[in-house]
Amino acid sequence: MAPVRVGWIGLGIMGKPMARNLLKAGYPLTVYNRSRAAVEELAAEGATPAASPAEVARQADRIFTMVTDSPDVEQVVLGPQGVLEGAREGAILIDMSTISPQVSRRIAQEAAAKGVQALDAPVSGGDVGARKGTLSIMVGGDREAFEAVLPLFQVLGKTITYVGPAGSGQEVKLVNQIVVALTVLAMAEGLAYARKVGLDLETVLQVITQGAAGSWTLSHYGPRVLRGDFAPGFMVRLQQKDLRLALESAAAAGQPLPGTALVHQLFRHLEATGAGNEGNHALVKVLEALGGQGERG
Amino acid sequence: MAPVRVGWIGLGIMGKPMARNLLKAGYPLTVYNRSRAAVEELAAEGATPAASPAEVARQADRIFTMVTDSPDVEQVVLGPQGVLEGAREGAILIDMSTISPQVSRRIAQEAAAKGVQALDAPVSGGDVGARKGTLSIMVGGDREAFEAVLPLFQVLGKTITYVGPAGSGQEVKLVNQIVVALTVLAMAEGLAYARKVGLDLETVLQVITQGAAGSWTLSHYGPRVLRGDFAPGFMVRLQQKDLRLALESAAAAGQPLPGTALVHQLFRHLEATGAGNEGNHALVKVLEALGGQGERG
Amino acid sequence: MAPVRVGWIGLGIMGKPMARNLLKAGYPLTVYNRSRAAVEELAAEGATPAASPAEVARQADRIFTMVTDSPDVEQVVLGPQGVLEGAREGAILIDMSTISPQVSRRIAQEAAAKGVQALDAPVSGGDVGARKGTLSIMVGGDREAFEAVLPLFQVLGKTITYVGPAGSGQEVKLVNQIVVALTVLAMAEGLAYARKVGLDLETVLQVITQGAAGSWTLSHYGPRVLRGDFAPGFMVRLQQKDLRLALESAAAAGQPLPGTALVHQLFRHLEATGAGNEGNHALVKVLEALGGQGERG
Amino acid sequence: MAPVRVGWIGLGIMGKPMARNLLKAGYPLTVYNRSRAAVEELAAEGATPAASPAEVARQADRIFTMVTDSPDVEQVVLGPQGVLEGAREGAILIDMSTISPQVSRRIAQEAAAKGVQALDAPVSGGDVGARKGTLSIMVGGDREAFEAVLPLFQVLGKTITYVGPAGSGQEVKLVNQIVVALTVLAMAEGLAYARKVGLDLETVLQVITQGAAGSWTLSHYGPRVLRGDFAPGFMVRLQQKDLRLALESAAAAGQPLPGTALVHQLFRHLEATGAGNEGNHALVKVLEALGGQGERG
Repeated sequence: MAPVRVGWIGLGIMGKPMARNLLKAGYPLTVYNRSRAAVEELAAEGATPAASPAEVARQADRIFTMVTDSPDVEQVVLGPQGVLEGAREGAILIDMSTISPQVSRRIAQEAAAKGVQALDAPVSGGDVGARKGTLSIMVGGDREAFEAVLPLFQVLGKTITYVGPAGSGQEVKLVNQIVVALTVLAMAEGLAYARKVGLDLETVLQVITQGAAGSWTLSHYGPRVLRGDFAPGFMVRLQQKDLRLALESAAAAGQPLPGTALVHQLFRHLEATGAGNEGNHALVKVLEALGGQGERG
Repeated sequence: MAPVRVGWIGLGIMGKPMARNLLKAGYPLTVYNRSRAAVEELAAEGATPAASPAEVARQADRIFTMVTDSPDVEQVVLGPQGVLEGAREGAILIDMSTISPQVSRRIAQEAAAKGVQALDAPVSGGDVGARKGTLSIMVGGDREAFEAVLPLFQVLGKTITYVGPAGSGQEVKLVNQIVVALTVLAMAEGLAYARKVGLDLETVLQVITQGAAGSWTLSHYGPRVLRGDFAPGFMVRLQQKDLRLALESAAAAGQPLPGTALVHQLFRHLEATGAGNEGNHALVKVLEALGGQGERG
Repeated sequence: MAPVRVGWIGLGIMGKPMARNLLKAGYPLTVYNRSRAAVEELAAEGATPAASPAEVARQADRIFTMVTDSPDVEQVVLGPQGVLEGAREGAILIDMSTISPQVSRRIAQEAAAKGVQALDAPVSGGDVGARKGTLSIMVGGDREAFEAVLPLFQVLGKTITYVGPAGSGQEVKLVNQIVVALTVLAMAEGLAYARKVGLDLETVLQVITQGAAGSWTLSHYGPRVLRGDFAPGFMVRLQQKDLRLALESAAAAGQPLPGTALVHQLFRHLEATGAGNEGNHALVKVLEALGGQGERG
Repeated sequence: MAPVRVGWIGLGIMGKPMARNLLKAGYPLTVYNRSRAAVEELAAEGATPAASPAEVARQADRIFTMVTDSPDVEQVVLGPQGVLEGAREGAILIDMSTISPQVSRRIAQEAAAKGVQALDAPVSGGDVGARKGTLSIMVGGDREAFEAVLPLFQVLGKTITYVGPAGSGQEVKLVNQIVVALTVLAMAEGLAYARKVGLDLETVLQVITQGAAGSWTLSHYGPRVLRGDFAPGFMVRLQQKDLRLALESAAAAGQPLPGTALVHQLFRHLEATGAGNEGNHALVKVLEALGGQGERG
């Protein structure tokens, strides 16, 4: 039986290595990207270049999108020369961007009207996870479509979870981001306080990382904070984009999130002082600045 | 060589099982408590009852206190018939209560003036850890005094860490409590949001507990939240006492802690609605109430 | 000289009485609204109905828009059959809606490209001020265009201020809304606390309304809170719309607003519990609920 | 009839001018202060010096205290050589310090046991109001005792209000401070945002000071903020003391105050950066720092 034909739209920091993994797994791959350099790079590796999302869609059974935000997904899927112009009935659209759950649901509706199943399948694990194929993928949409795409997901990631109907994948991603951001705030306030009262930070970290205060964040980023290494990790500006989406979705649902709203404002100080491309563990610097503490030596 | 003679003041939920463990380890133990019932209970197991903290101190080389708050430690150590009235030079006072670092430092000064070393050694691990002797103990004070008491600490706990000069033990405990409280807020906002938008919470928990959002809190309390089981764990009113101490100490040090201040106010809703003896993971109910969500069925 | 011909698009709670005031002042008025009832009402009073914003624009020198949010203004100005399709060079477009400053600036650019000056002139004073012609109007855009429209503004409002280039009117409106919302929070926390500790609220209000704690909010809404009268005033859902715009604009400018973000979340509880159409002074009920206080008798 | 004999304990920035006003009004005045300089100054003006609070109390029918905080009032009233050691039955004690309502109530109880009525009568109006005798005074305690002291209050202040039983005066003062602090936050966030987006601040202030955003704070401190004049006004460290008392009292009453807790943390940045003696309107500098804005020129 002929292998499933795959299309990939969006070859950025995440999309390019993800598309490459599918290509290396032996799938016929047609690709499109706004700027041609990445297209040509993958074409040299065996992908078929396309001139538009519609053209990708015409040649694929499984069409992936990995772009920046809601308007970008709407553009490449619903816009002129978009995926839905070219996709045939029975094709499956998989959006792996992190966007508004509301927009994901609307896209699924519009796709269904054209006989195309749409899955929202945002990821977690960064560009490292994208390259290594170890992403965590949270998938919303039709269950059977999920099962049909599962072999492809298993090339791209390590932990693949079906979470519910269309939009649920995005919602679970946003839950994840709320918890991550506030756990980073926990570390930031604890360590800024510890530094201000003159404790030995290595000892502090050793003690609190075990037991009830422990978290992935503390274990992975605590040592980097102590070293003054604020390279990402997970970029502040991407954290902020996800928090904006979370707060918008919570607003629509009528759910107050005072902690999330606070940490979103605190992160803004990093964006305002040119640190938007640092890792989110740089939040400790905001608390230190509030405490009148100077830069770490 | 005769075994070190131990005194224990404060036989509450934590103090009684801790004193009992030292007794069972073979140490001669003299005890005092404001209400006699616990004294008589341990006397029946071989402890020697005393009528005052001073009397305990007169008969001990290592004098432990485990009481509720700063004024209580000041009372039993510095007050009339207090430890310092009875203690001889060379004795070591070990306060295992969680109190103000500032008060701990003052007590250490006053004790030193009488030739008594004082260690602040607050614990983590609850009454379960107290009974099983698996507490985590963070010790501040003179290093040699710490070494001298270490065998006793090893009866009481599993993880014993020397963290710095007098007051440091308390400070590290407060760092721990700041991080715990904000990590609980992370879980509370994530799960309240997830419930409000109609996600399947079992699936959500399964996904977010792994990876960057993971924490001891999420793993241990997430499932209890889903079951509506809000029994402690770690009582809200004790969390609140520790947060009050943390905010007071941060105030003295000039360190703003906006997240900690916020979660301290949110927990207050539980105290105001009769839930002060529930576990701190009940915080999710405050977020749910803010979102107009009813009680979990 | 023939009077200036006026066009009005958007005849809602604010727009209809404002358009009516211009009609009564003797200006030839052409009107458009999505639903016809209001159009027919004003037509019976002497206005000329139009079938589209473009048709209004073809017959007017001064074209007013008063609609709900940014997409609505973009639609009626830039969209098909929009104002810019019909407006002639030299016409002045005056948007009196409260929308994104960024969108206002873009509209001004697009209008300028067609030889049309655009002013952003949001208002304050509610439907009462709209009817009575006593609105406060904050105007951004070209200074000369402002001067040309001033006689019309003076029919609509009592306090008219030129505040700066295009977008500035919206920005000043948002500053106003930030200050209003936080002043309402000041009253809400003060009165909730006063009620919780059992003070006589009439006396409290009498004391605090004078002196350093005094504000328009306290004077105008304090007595209503005491009476349990939460009718608007200024509707919570409109306050929330303005706070969303303020937080979005602050985000774009890199200005953290932790207080504004907090009050925006607290107001959400009112939206979540069906009180979105109450006055913003109902915020006190959120603080009372947090304190476990029941409804006021 | 012989004039009422007055005693005054505490001759600081507030107490000295207040005591002086009673002396100038013709009352026989006995004074005590920890440091003698102020005592000697008033003795040169006709006051009788005393060597202890008890000695003051022995010679007075009306005994005023104006000291720093709860422990100070407890010390001079209940401590050795304190007021209650010297006061005779029928004397009235008036504490005009701002302290814990709970402590005020306890002092009233202890005084009553000795036949002495105690009033809590904190003030508002600063050292300027103290000198000019224009203070606002909020009085709690026995109604008849209030009436008996009213002529003295009328020398000290302009607006005197009886607010309820013992402790109520302090509570109303704290309500006032909650509202003041959050109204200052309203101004701080509004003006920091306005500056960040490049608005003309004179115009902004002119527009927002009228209407729904208006407040005493905005009118009195807005212009000083624009000039970069941060001299008190009302000192940050005194604002912080009052906010601490308010948050403690709210905690005891079970009333969450998330806004008050937030502004208390934000003010801490000023204390942490050596600005504790600036006026509370300096809060705008914290918001500006969060937005990465430099010092005002």
